[in-house]
Amino acid sequence: MATAADADAMRRAIQLAARGLGSTSPNPIVGCVILDASGQPVGAGFHQRAGGPHAEVHALRDAGERARGGTAYVTLEPCNHTGRTGPCAQALIDAGIGRVVYAVGDPNPQATGGGDTLRAAGIKVESGLLADEAEAGNIAWLTSVRLGRPYVLWKYAATLDGRIAAQDGTSRWITSSESRADVHRLRAEADAVIVGSGTARADDPHLAVRGIEGAVNEVMPSGTQPLRVVVDTDATAVRPGARVLDDAAPTLIAVAEDAETELPDVVRLPRADRGLSVAALLEALHQRGIRSVLLEGGPTLAGAFVAAGAVDKVVGYLAPVLLGAGPAALADAGISTITEALRLDVTETVRIGPDLRITAVPATTPKER
Amino acid sequence: MATAADADAMRRAIQLAARGLGSTSPNPIVGCVILDASGQPVGAGFHQRAGGPHAEVHALRDAGERARGGTAYVTLEPCNHTGRTGPCAQALIDAGIGRVVYAVGDPNPQATGGGDTLRAAGIKVESGLLADEAEAGNIAWLTSVRLGRPYVLWKYAATLDGRIAAQDGTSRWITSSESRADVHRLRAEADAVIVGSGTARADDPHLAVRGIEGAVNEVMPSGTQPLRVVVDTDATAVRPGARVLDDAAPTLIAVAEDAETELPDVVRLPRADRGLSVAALLEALHQRGIRSVLLEGGPTLAGAFVAAGAVDKVVGYLAPVLLGAGPAALADAGISTITEALRLDVTETVRIGPDLRITAVPATTPKER
Repeated sequence: MATAADADAMRRAIQLAARGLGSTSPNPIVGCVILDASGQPVGAGFHQRAGGPHAEVHALRDAGERARGGTAYVTLEPCNHTGRTGPCAQALIDAGIGRVVYAVGDPNPQATGGGDTLRAAGIKVESGLLADEAEAGNIAWLTSVRLGRPYVLWKYAATLDGRIAAQDGTSRWITSSESRADVHRLRAEADAVIVGSGTARADDPHLAVRGIEGAVNEVMPSGTQPLRVVVDTDATAVRPGARVLDDAAPTLIAVAEDAETELPDVVRLPRADRGLSVAALLEALHQRGIRSVLLEGGPTLAGAFVAAGAVDKVVGYLAPVLLGAGPAALADAGISTITEALRLDVTETVRIGPDLRITAVPATTPKER
Repeated sequence: MATAADADAMRRAIQLAARGLGSTSPNPIVGCVILDASGQPVGAGFHQRAGGPHAEVHALRDAGERARGGTAYVTLEPCNHTGRTGPCAQALIDAGIGRVVYAVGDPNPQATGGGDTLRAAGIKVESGLLADEAEAGNIAWLTSVRLGRPYVLWKYAATLDGRIAAQDGTSRWITSSESRADVHRLRAEADAVIVGSGTARADDPHLAVRGIEGAVNEVMPSGTQPLRVVVDTDATAVRPGARVLDDAAPTLIAVAEDAETELPDVVRLPRADRGLSVAALLEALHQRGIRSVLLEGGPTLAGAFVAAGAVDKVVGYLAPVLLGAGPAALADAGISTITEALRLDVTETVRIGPDLRITAVPATTPKER
């Protein structure tokens, strides 16, 4: 049975895991805490980047000989396969760990089976401790494994009456500096940031993660910048010299198969009713190892994602502002009557400076387990 | 100095006062609690309806002889004038009250001076205890005294992307039954409910307060229904047989001076750039004793009120729903660029069933004191 000490150790492992958000793809985030036989913490670690050591290895190195006979708390079932690094199940066995507690089973068919391997070696294995919390932290990776496409978080910033700009197109600033800083945190946690041609044309956005150096290092231990993606169907919005083409972060321009462009790093995708095929775009990103994307708009692209059923989470920054005119946060999503509306469940509301941040997920999304 | 017992008594008086919301206009809401000389509660009352006894009289009757030498806690300075009832200051003196504590001074020039009268009679008088809370409860009446027009609360119900209906006009139901019940509470607390011709034409609304009988009696001790007001500039939206014309509550149809109509109970008002003059409408309502109005829309009328600077509070019910098309909650408010936006301060956010209720007030409104 799990004790309060077990839960404390697992909670710390979950917190450690989150420090890898945005830099581990195509791998999951994982945290590991090791207590010695007397219950004293002797090691901790998290998976920092793909190709680097797994969380268990970091924690075992940290603990050294003191791991022998102790308990390892891992947010995800220890892997059983040799990829760029050796299997963690074997590492735990070799270190003489006496008991392994993991939160969530590994759904990846290539890596699963770690629990069985540990048991076969005589190690006591328990699973499911704080599984909901651990799953919530790893929701992007788990969703990508389940659906075979990246997890999509749509972020928008609007007035109370749903406008993203005034009638004349001005929008600086509807939301506060606190909200804009919070968006940089979302970018840092994502593998890719996507905007459409309208946003590219209107704002010439940079889309890289900015922030105080220390904060960036905390959020992104390995300094990873998300892939910047512009959906520029007709290859007319992103011009040479666009800010998104600088070397602050990698960039991918998605254009139609028949579009004429001389830009480097374009991916050619089939057209859909409106713009490019969202499914094809997500498949192309998945193939590049992208497991989570932050969809930053604008309204036309967001509408296409909603119409494609490809929004897994919505984060809205609502500024206490009224405009009465100007473009709405979401354009045509193929919904013409109220019974077709996309219904969500609000999971969190937080005040961010003077604004409200509302987080919601589709009400029809099946539970992740 | 105010003690904890003083604060407790005043807090109870404020809670009592709120029970009169919606039925006391053109008078304020007032609550009164009396403690005897030993600090025991011996009387309590609140102002229930215009023309009826004031809060102090109810409380003094409740206390009887036990009021002698005691303390009266009143949310508003006791009145000093003889209107439909005698002056409360004199009633407190006659009852032998030893000390009076009131929260907010009476700004009404006809009624002020009660504190001085009490002092002249040798009664100990203190003011300002829980003044902020008492003012917040009486904000509608205080605003109407200060501005010479009714206090305006604009209520809207929209999706997360700011739509009040789908593209085809369907809107049943965007918000939940819990939110719709909450709107009935807002109606019960208002002296009048206002809609525009678009809403009248599209929804044929009833606009009366409905609810469980007991709840209605609790909210509206005197059973008052708000005045139903339809702004029907060209007298084309409200037809004989409209639900708003039944006898469930009084109704007023506001039409242009030159409009042709055979409806009873119309008020003729000057036209403005868009529809009727909002200032003239509010003046007409103020003359009828209306001190607070609930503006229920639709977007065109709300835009005219925002443009006229006549929105004192905004209550938005946001449903976790996305539509991507359909009318917005607020139409043309005369704002064309971001620097002209109406900026608000959020004062409260509450979950109402699956929805969010956001309350905000104009950031530029001067403090009420």
